[in-house]
Amino acid sequence: MNAIAQFQARRRDIPAGFLDALKAQFGERFSVANSVREHHGSDESPYEPVLPDGVVFAQSTEDVAWVARHCHQHGVPLIAYGTGSSLEGHILAVQGGITLDLSGLNKVVAVNAEDLTVTVQAGVTRKQLNTEIRDTGLFFPIDPGADASLGGMAATRASGTNAVRYGTMRENVMNLKVVMADGRVVQTANRARKSSAGYDLTRLFVGSEGTLGIITEVTVRLYPQPEAISAAVCNFPTLRAAVQSVIEIIQMGVPVARVEFLDLAAVKAINAYSKLTLHESPLLLFEFHGSPAGVREQAQTVQEITSGNGGTAFEWAEHPEDRSRLWAARHNAYFAGLHLRPGARSTTTDVCVPISRLADCVLETAADLEKASFPYTMLGHVGDGNFHVQMMLDSGNPAEWEESERINHRLVARAIAMDGTCTGEHGVGLHKMEFMLAEHGQDALDLMSALKHALDPDNILNPGKMIPSA
Amino acid sequence: MNAIAQFQARRRDIPAGFLDALKAQFGERFSVANSVREHHGSDESPYEPVLPDGVVFAQSTEDVAWVARHCHQHGVPLIAYGTGSSLEGHILAVQGGITLDLSGLNKVVAVNAEDLTVTVQAGVTRKQLNTEIRDTGLFFPIDPGADASLGGMAATRASGTNAVRYGTMRENVMNLKVVMADGRVVQTANRARKSSAGYDLTRLFVGSEGTLGIITEVTVRLYPQPEAISAAVCNFPTLRAAVQSVIEIIQMGVPVARVEFLDLAAVKAINAYSKLTLHESPLLLFEFHGSPAGVREQAQTVQEITSGNGGTAFEWAEHPEDRSRLWAARHNAYFAGLHLRPGARSTTTDVCVPISRLADCVLETAADLEKASFPYTMLGHVGDGNFHVQMMLDSGNPAEWEESERINHRLVARAIAMDGTCTGEHGVGLHKMEFMLAEHGQDALDLMSALKHALDPDNILNPGKMIPSA
Repeated sequence: MNAIAQFQARRRDIPAGFLDALKAQFGERFSVANSVREHHGSDESPYEPVLPDGVVFAQSTEDVAWVARHCHQHGVPLIAYGTGSSLEGHILAVQGGITLDLSGLNKVVAVNAEDLTVTVQAGVTRKQLNTEIRDTGLFFPIDPGADASLGGMAATRASGTNAVRYGTMRENVMNLKVVMADGRVVQTANRARKSSAGYDLTRLFVGSEGTLGIITEVTVRLYPQPEAISAAVCNFPTLRAAVQSVIEIIQMGVPVARVEFLDLAAVKAINAYSKLTLHESPLLLFEFHGSPAGVREQAQTVQEITSGNGGTAFEWAEHPEDRSRLWAARHNAYFAGLHLRPGARSTTTDVCVPISRLADCVLETAADLEKASFPYTMLGHVGDGNFHVQMMLDSGNPAEWEESERINHRLVARAIAMDGTCTGEHGVGLHKMEFMLAEHGQDALDLMSALKHALDPDNILNPGKMIPSA
Repeated sequence: MNAIAQFQARRRDIPAGFLDALKAQFGERFSVANSVREHHGSDESPYEPVLPDGVVFAQSTEDVAWVARHCHQHGVPLIAYGTGSSLEGHILAVQGGITLDLSGLNKVVAVNAEDLTVTVQAGVTRKQLNTEIRDTGLFFPIDPGADASLGGMAATRASGTNAVRYGTMRENVMNLKVVMADGRVVQTANRARKSSAGYDLTRLFVGSEGTLGIITEVTVRLYPQPEAISAAVCNFPTLRAAVQSVIEIIQMGVPVARVEFLDLAAVKAINAYSKLTLHESPLLLFEFHGSPAGVREQAQTVQEITSGNGGTAFEWAEHPEDRSRLWAARHNAYFAGLHLRPGARSTTTDVCVPISRLADCVLETAADLEKASFPYTMLGHVGDGNFHVQMMLDSGNPAEWEESERINHRLVARAIAMDGTCTGEHGVGLHKMEFMLAEHGQDALDLMSALKHALDPDNILNPGKMIPSA
């Protein structure tokens, strides 16, 4: 996409000897190879890669602090890289500089099962974490679909399918170890479940997208594995009936663990991609966690609500393998969407609105999309009021990109007018920067700039992201 | 207590004409009367009053912004005042200046029952809020005991008895309207349940104790009133048995709504003060929320755990009036404690530790307290690892104050060594400032100072609080 061109001009010069010093310090763990730089300048966004000047493969907080001090001294940009699963261009090196690959920070530091907490290095992924703690009887619920790193999930304030029950990274991160712009290392909190001792440094960094500091350790809350889990599928005659059911379920306070919406196109896409036989109409996927009796009770209440809105009887996925297959299909919806148009790249919207406005927002968006000249799907974490439109674009056709951008602009304007947000969980990165002013207003944006300037006065941490002026 | 003397010296001069301009602007809503200043320079802390130079009774965000601009222009301190229920000296005017009484901001701005949110002006108290929304079938759970204002609760990151189930103000504030040091007005977020659009301004102000901005509107989450509620009392032979039961309940993931611990002295005190007949031994008070079947299931699990630790059979408070009486007694525990020693003032500790260390922390503290020369009680929100020691002191006897301070120092050191915090919910104010360095370390404290300086460069917002250098 040529939308990236505007960022290229701001590339900074690298001082003489700067890269040599990195080579001397890190040896084979520093690379300027084109393939390595290209890999680390790419993500799952619609943008073409924008390469850093070099990549350091960090293995410790000390490595990160060393690079930060070196970059700070020479005014060179520094970009944290987890797994590259960003959808919004977060890790593109739009001002050049050094990318810090944190995948080598892959140790579980401390499992405190008695306290329902775990501390991991930032490069540990959510699947790795859940595998390593399986024997404790606990699990980490936040599930953004991709097997993202915990550091990246904290940095983008990620959430996903389980957030309706368990909250987002905002609610589940307890403590962070962060390397500041000048290389100092800060621990943001401790392991007390609550504290009123000063400013909330933890949440200052959660969602800061590598622009205020580089997260190297994350302590998160864990939850007992539910005694009983069940999953169900419910089809609806219309989008409205599906969304209205979700609104009533949330308003009743039913503690559903997951409630995912898929429109007709999304159902067809995942049937084709994941070889499922879901009935093809708008549908909701549910998961219930609790005691056996509690799960039955939740399911019964939900079934009453969905029936009242014209939903079909639940199709149950009682066996763990059926459930896994269903949720794997949901998680692969992104790739299933891409599969609708071989060779396409996709761009994904991410609005979130108060639940009372969800039906209006979904239906107005569906009406707007009817005229689209490319394939698209709609799906989302509707229990939170958050849904996505995935648009499959011919990357050689700028007109399609512009059309998709107009659709997203209208969608974001709609969401903001409904007291919602341009991004529920994907973050700002490059792609949502243009909406920050409309969403927050100038004074709040100035306040964000003041925070950025206070913590990173030379603007070396992931520059050119999140705040339009940075 | 003479501990306040060190703060008096820093009182700032008020420029000529400054107070006259406030009088001209606010008329009878501005007062320099001694009784008014004394009332607004006092709280529930052990400190003697420290009076502001004048008090403005604000009725709107515009009033607050006007005062902020005026104070900003002249470098005069500005202190927000809700209901004066702070236990830590938050609102004492240690550098003089103007106190803004926000009790006139007492309107419920918008009830969005469909979204389970409400927006109130900062002076609305939690009891007023729950009275005004009663007909919606929703309630606001955060309950710090005192009938505090929502603005004050946000500013101190308050929690209380329900936090074990519903979280603290950190988890439940969705959006704030805040007047900045220079009078600009910022809206920190919107009403989407989640967002990844930029820095978390909401949580920057939650817990900032009036030092970063003055909160004038608060949007919080509401919850459906539970279909069924039951409460129970369980007595234990020892402190350890009671605390061990709580640890097991939390580790099992039982969603208790409340689990409060009272030591023998606290039980005796509330029996005497509230004319109850609780069996006099360490006890736990429980409340269960849910469906009728869910509540029974929770209670059964909890009873099995407490029995396994030597607890007595539950005594039930099934009727709403019995429950109200029980919880009113718990809420009056502070006054019941004071009643143990007529004429005394009390000082209250507030550590919070990871739940695995709770038994150690409580028992070591109990052992330390055995030598105390004054009456004390221990009680707390033990489901969160948070407990209080209330010490009843002869305010004419500096030796008792010093003894209580030594006890609190040892207690805080114990909690920090256990990866806990000096304050779980009361905030820093004046009384916990001395622990900020030990708890956070110099680099994190410097980061907090940088945030303070970025938002309030002239240090006019509640100066001399929270951060030792401010």
